[in-house]
Amino acid sequence: MKGGLVTRGGEVTALEGRPTGRESGPETVVAAIRAYVDELVDLGSSRYGAPPDGIGLAVPGIVTTSTAVYSANIGWYDVPVSAFVPPGIPARLGHDVRTGGLAESVLGAGRGVADFLFLAIGTGIAGAVVIGGEPYGGAEGSGGEIGHAPVWPAGEKCACGQIGCLETYASASALVRRYEARSPSRTAATAKDVVSLAVAGEAVAGEVFDEAVEALAISLASYVMLLDPAAIVIGGGLAEAGQTLFLPLEERLSARLTFRERPPLLPAALGMRAGMLGAALLGWQAAGVPDVGRDWSLDVLRRGAVP
Amino acid sequence: MKGGLVTRGGEVTALEGRPTGRESGPETVVAAIRAYVDELVDLGSSRYGAPPDGIGLAVPGIVTTSTAVYSANIGWYDVPVSAFVPPGIPARLGHDVRTGGLAESVLGAGRGVADFLFLAIGTGIAGAVVIGGEPYGGAEGSGGEIGHAPVWPAGEKCACGQIGCLETYASASALVRRYEARSPSRTAATAKDVVSLAVAGEAVAGEVFDEAVEALAISLASYVMLLDPAAIVIGGGLAEAGQTLFLPLEERLSARLTFRERPPLLPAALGMRAGMLGAALLGWQAAGVPDVGRDWSLDVLRRGAVP
Repeated sequence: MKGGLVTRGGEVTALEGRPTGRESGPETVVAAIRAYVDELVDLGSSRYGAPPDGIGLAVPGIVTTSTAVYSANIGWYDVPVSAFVPPGIPARLGHDVRTGGLAESVLGAGRGVADFLFLAIGTGIAGAVVIGGEPYGGAEGSGGEIGHAPVWPAGEKCACGQIGCLETYASASALVRRYEARSPSRTAATAKDVVSLAVAGEAVAGEVFDEAVEALAISLASYVMLLDPAAIVIGGGLAEAGQTLFLPLEERLSARLTFRERPPLLPAALGMRAGMLGAALLGWQAAGVPDVGRDWSLDVLRRGAVP
Repeated sequence: MKGGLVTRGGEVTALEGRPTGRESGPETVVAAIRAYVDELVDLGSSRYGAPPDGIGLAVPGIVTTSTAVYSANIGWYDVPVSAFVPPGIPARLGHDVRTGGLAESVLGAGRGVADFLFLAIGTGIAGAVVIGGEPYGGAEGSGGEIGHAPVWPAGEKCACGQIGCLETYASASALVRRYEARSPSRTAATAKDVVSLAVAGEAVAGEVFDEAVEALAISLASYVMLLDPAAIVIGGGLAEAGQTLFLPLEERLSARLTFRERPPLLPAALGMRAGMLGAALLGWQAAGVPDVGRDWSLDVLRRGAVP
């Protein structure tokens, strides 16, 4: 996990990582988060002369602003936000990818775009449906699971048990898994390797990468039909492939749309920091200052950051 | 087209139909709507002693509250709401299916459900994405086109030119077309006939109906993953098949969801009147009384209606 102190003006300090202790079970993770929060609160108190005005936390799974309802990865159920923070400081929870979408909306690639999809392609695939500038989580906080919407309904079985999910074709881990399955004599350590092999003209890597791009195009075509976004913001590790991903994806998505224009595909602006910055915005929302962030510049963030 | 007078208390009178004159081109349609609106305004004035407080219109295609941007069926572009109504009466436009979704939300099957999909399965298929009780049209008013989201990405070509759209498998007209294509010696006049043949055990009709249900299940699985609705409200002509449609659709949708519950499928409550009632709600919104309708009972509407 990562955490930091973020001022109202957008100065980021104390941005550091800590282990979650996930292997020791959910109680350990909650305790580790709480200890890290306490540490940051103490650091803020000594640095700024007062504890933070608010605390925001981005967590995976099914999440409301007050409860971490469920996470398959961590194994927790119904953890109230009060378990993570010391008493007396207002705090708000957010879903990790939706919180990244909030950061991209307020101060990243989605700045000035009210309605867009933030698509995070990493080990898994998830989305933040941004409506009117706010990430939308659905009726009970489990929306945005575009990675588990079917793209090939009679296709491969996903780890989730469903058939033909986007994630099983197009996540970073899917690229590696699918490449190795078809090319047993060679290994690819990372999705980046598969992309590099594809660019270099290696046939199997090319096939696997093409199929990933096609799956993404099918999924985005559905999204465009249903939600008419003004843009699609793509982040996560695979987005670092840049034009190698964006150009064929734009072409294939355009080919699947006949009666409307393709919305622009934009690279996410905040990278791995989107979640942490979004959590800072949630903290300022909890503090009763919801408009914080709209006047931040990315430069200020970069200059202010402690590596 | 249909129109009527609807009081603040939910009494519906003068509910009648008129031809649109579509075959004579878009100017004729605009003039026909305007003439019908004038007629209803005069009728309202003589019946209630004053012209209506507001006017709502539900039209197809791409629509904002102030402009009928485009309709492929009618052929119009950028018609302002002022072209449809006499001066001096506040008026508001809505998309036909989204307006039906508004009516289902305020006083129909979606009453008390903030976040749901209204799926209208008729000659075509379209949806209203209802969020926080309001139909959501996307960035520019062309959202909800679930009928043209791909379900079989390498499947049949749709009339829209795209590949594998839901509508090309599961609309009422698709049932007839696909049945006749596979069973050249027999004809089915309507989708209802195909459904009846399927229920009676006729093999080709059974296949075609099964494929329609499967396409709907795939499409709804995507919707559920992406938008986590509290319910799915199904209307349009095909919904009249009742449990013949709902039972297998529930079963197939459940089979495509492994890590979350299936939201309930609910039959739409307003039938063919959803669009007209939604337009009445838009008219009351235009009049500055947005909460009209929440206290109406369906019974009052039925009793008040002139056949």
